[in-house]
Parts: sequence; C-alpha cells; structure tokens
Amino acid sequence: MSFDRLIEKIIKTQNPTVVGLDPRLEYIPEYIKAKKFQKYGKTFKGAAKAILTFNKKIIDEIYDIVPAIKPQAAYYEMYGWEGVKTLAKTIEYAKSMGMYVITDGKRNDIGATMEAYAAAHIGQTDIDGEMCEAFGADALTVNGYLGTDGISPLLEICRNADKGIFVLVKTSNKSSGELQDKLIGDKPVYGVMGDMCEQWGAGAMGKYGYSSVGAVVGATYPEQLAEMRKALPHTFFLVPGYGAQGGGAEGVSKGFDENGLGAIVNSSRAVMCAYKKEECDERDFAKAARREVIRMKEDIISYLPKISLE
Amino acid sequence: MSFDRLIEKIIKTQNPTVVGLDPRLEYIPEYIKAKKFQKYGKTFKGAAKAILTFNKKIIDEIYDIVPAIKPQAAYYEMYGWEGVKTLAKTIEYAKSMGMYVITDGKRNDIGATMEAYAAAHIGQTDIDGEMCEAFGADALTVNGYLGTDGISPLLEICRNADKGIFVLVKTSNKSSGELQDKLIGDKPVYGVMGDMCEQWGAGAMGKYGYSSVGAVVGATYPEQLAEMRKALPHTFFLVPGYGAQGGGAEGVSKGFDENGLGAIVNSSRAVMCAYKKEECDERDFAKAARREVIRMKEDIISYLPKISLE
Repeated sequence: MSFDRLIEKIIKTQNPTVVGLDPRLEYIPEYIKAKKFQKYGKTFKGAAKAILTFNKKIIDEIYDIVPAIKPQAAYYEMYGWEGVKTLAKTIEYAKSMGMYVITDGKRNDIGATMEAYAAAHIGQTDIDGEMCEAFGADALTVNGYLGTDGISPLLEICRNADKGIFVLVKTSNKSSGELQDKLIGDKPVYGVMGDMCEQWGAGAMGKYGYSSVGAVVGATYPEQLAEMRKALPHTFFLVPGYGAQGGGAEGVSKGFDENGLGAIVNSSRAVMCAYKKEECDERDFAKAARREVIRMKEDIISYLPKISLE
Repeated sequence: MSFDRLIEKIIKTQNPTVVGLDPRLEYIPEYIKAKKFQKYGKTFKGAAKAILTFNKKIIDEIYDIVPAIKPQAAYYEMYGWEGVKTLAKTIEYAKSMGMYVITDGKRNDIGATMEAYAAAHIGQTDIDGEMCEAFGADALTVNGYLGTDGISPLLEICRNADKGIFVLVKTSNKSSGELQDKLIGDKPVYGVMGDMCEQWGAGAMGKYGYSSVGAVVGATYPEQLAEMRKALPHTFFLVPGYGAQGGGAEGVSKGFDENGLGAIVNSSRAVMCAYKKEECDERDFAKAARREVIRMKEDIISYLPKISLE
C-alpha cells in the first residue's frame, strides 16, 4: 500500500536516495553513441537505442544499493515515440531488477483524461476487455493546480494497486516563489497545496504512517522543507535539487522524520555524469555512477538518525 | 509569429473552434476496431492502429471547415509507445492537410527539462548535429505552477519557430477553484497566473495584437472568462468545457474580442461521438462529426460579431 514498498527498500538499502535517469544525449559515452549511430544513423531510433543501453548499464551497477530510479519523461519524449519506447523498456528493466520506479511526468488533467494518465503511467489500460500495462511505474509525479478533479482519478489506483503519487508543492527552481510563495491569507500557495496533499492522502494511508500522496519539495529551500515536514506528517517527500542545483545534505536532512524516513532525495546529472567529473575512461561510466551513488548516500545519511522503524 | 497562423485560419474558415481528438477506444466504431484487433490482437498495437484510422477519417471530413485539432496526450499514452506513435502520426497527418495542431499535454518542468519538452512537442531535437522533429505540433498546453523557469524555455521556440503555448489559468472543472479561486491579496490565483501570461508574452507579440503565450480559460466559468478577456488583452484563449462539460455558446462568447477573435473553443466528445448521438450507421461517423462541427460553429458564431480584422 502507498509508499510502503519504497520505505521497505529504503530501509533495506539504508539509502534514502533515488537516481534520476534524465539521459541527455551529451551525457552518454561516445562509444555507445558511435555504435548505435553506425547501425541506425543519427535518428530517433539510434538515440533511443543508445539511451536504453546507457540506462541498463547504470541500473546493472546500482540496483543493489539504491531503492529507486526516477526517469524524467521529457528526456524520452524529445526522441519521439522511439524515445518513449525506451522509457517503457527502462521501467520494465528496472522493475525486473527489483527497483522501485518513479516516473517524473508532472502530469495533470481532469476526470476521464486524468484517468487515462493514471492508467498509462501507474495503472492498466482496458483494451476491449484485455488489461494491459502501458508504462507500469510504481509512482508518478503530478501537478495539483487543477484541484481534486485532477487527483482523485489517481487515488483509486493508489489504494487498490499499491501505487503512489508525488504532487508538486514547493519546487526547487529559482522562480518557484513567483506563485508558490504568494500568500493566501497567512499561508503561502505551497502550504495550501501541501494541506491538500494531506487531505487527498487521508483515505490512502500506508502501514508506516505515510499515505499514497507524496509531495515534491525542493532541496534548495531547506526552511520550507523543515516547515512542510512539520506541517505534513503523513506526506512522503520527493526532494529534487540536491547537488547540481545547489541543495546540500544538511539542508536535505530537514525533510526527514525521527526515523530517518519520510523523504527520498534525487540526484540525476551527478550520477549519470560521474565519469566526466572523475575524468575516468568513459567505458567505466557505470562504475563511476556507483561510486557517486555511494558518496551521495554517505553524505546524506551522515546528517540523519539511523534509518529504522524499530 | 505566435498565434498569427491560427488567427488567419480562423478568419479563413470563419470558425473559432478546435476539434479535440481524445480517442477513447469506446468512441471508435466497432467495424474499425474489429478489423485492427483481427490483424493485431487486442493489443496496444491494435488499439493504436484503430485510433489512427479513426483520427484520419475525422480529419479528412473536417480539415476544410475547422482551423485546428487538439489531440490530448493522455489518450495516446494510455496505449503505451504504440499509442504515442499514433499521436505523432496524427499530428503529421493533420499538418499535411493544412490544419493547426495544439497538443494538449499540460507539460511543466524547469530549465533543461522544460527545454526537452519544448523540443519534443513544438521544437526540434538535436541528435548529434542532426535536427529532427519529434512530435511537431504548432502549440502546446502547459502548466505554469513552477513559474518563469518553466515557461522561458518555450519562449525562444515561440519567437523563432512560429509556435505558441497555452498556460492553464482558470480550468473548466468543478474543483478548479480549490486553488485557482483563492485570493492572493485582492486577486485570485488564476488572476495572478493570467498576469504572468501577459508578462511572458510581452516579448513575443504577433501582428494581430496577441502574443505567443495564450491561456486556458474554461467555458464553464463565463464570468471569469469575461473578466480575463478584459484583463489580458494580448492573451489568446483556448476555451475547453463547451458542450459535454456544460459550457454554452453565450457564455463562451465572453472570451472573444470585438473582432470575434481572441479565443478558440474546443469540443471533443460531441464531435467524435456525433454518430452515437445521431444514432446513424457507425460507418458514417466522420460525416456525423462534420455535421456536429458545423452545428457547433453556427451556435458559437451566432453570439459573435463577424470574425474579421478589417
């Protein structure tokens, strides 16, 4: 139920982080691209095949020490339907290796259309009586600007099919405050959105005290992260912005509870491009990714209590 | 530039409406589905092929009397990458018939990730020096909750490649007010978002007085539509909620300016399922769609001044 499976994986790996797979072509080692471009040309197919190879090799090296991956849909859509096929294959592969998958799609719509997104990304599609899984992630990021009509279609899947959603509350970017920090009465917009997360999650509670409705709260705003952790005791946080965007481990620790739980911190570029920073052989990119995953984990847990429910 | 091409098509057809192609499988005539399922099974491929056939036949019957189509991404994603391939093929076909295409994806993210969505849907993708078009729509719906960081990556494409975006301002659904109607000082959230549309559009103005940054304002809230039309003189409106959701032609007319321009009204289900309402032979579904398009156009323009810039 809800994020219980994710929480169990975090405890098992003692690692509250998620690796973002946002595979810009420039991140991918030349030898992989050269091989695929030779076979398929500089085409969407060539790019999509290169990305899939890259993703699988990263997953092979990290699946035993990281609980989850977070593919960002935009970086697959930019390679057309061939890229979207690679998104599906990446999710399938990560799940086969026992990882939890959060599709970062920030989807939003209402009623039947939101049901279609829910079916696509975390549910099943009914094809004239045959139930088929389109993308099959465990969780999806969503945007709550449209209100309850945009969230309720997801809640049934969360309850019945053991899935979760992360609603954008306070995002990590510089201009997030233009709307999100504006005051409604004495509460900022992000606080109002956070309260809605608690309400939406009330009927979909997991056994560890967190509901199926999580929130995205950026690492770049530690004060708000602390404030939201206190205000939203049943809402699990997905925390982007660590590392490349400037969020540090001490700030990130504000998003966690007294059991070292309640949040999962994302890192994308620093892991995918670790081989560039290390200046090692590009063929060692996946091993460099593993080293960065371990570095990040040690950095973050050094500010946390032991991750445990006992 | 901006929505100029759309405005010219609206004037030429004297029709300020757009047909939403949100092809739920249950909307598609049995004879089309039976043929594709026989060939490909009840699979994503079978469903995707049926949807493409359906869409093309609708486009064939309406391309000369409607300026634009609006495919809703969710209904393609629910059929996996095969469905997303049908989205790409539908856009390609509509453009080959001279139609303007608005992809309804409500995409949102920041920085490089939003650049990826922009490249995917209205721009081009750089594959190691080869520029390729992934989906190639003329405009994209977006969600502005993340602020300027989520919008600015789109503006360059809007300016240089003659494309547009529609930002969610006041959506048509019942619960849209939960956040959008809340007051920030004396202005509702949707008003603040509307003001941002005017600011974002200021550097990307078209020759008919409307910028590249449009807004989604629902037909179900005619008062807010009138209020926004007055407050946002350079912002072109995409108006969902006519018909099935309860918005009437008189209410919708509040979104237009004194030239009968400034807005385009969407109808999806009523057009796609016109053959069901008419109870005609399902093989006449596309001709029934054409009849509904004409009915809707006559209904809406009866409340407008003559559509003209002269």
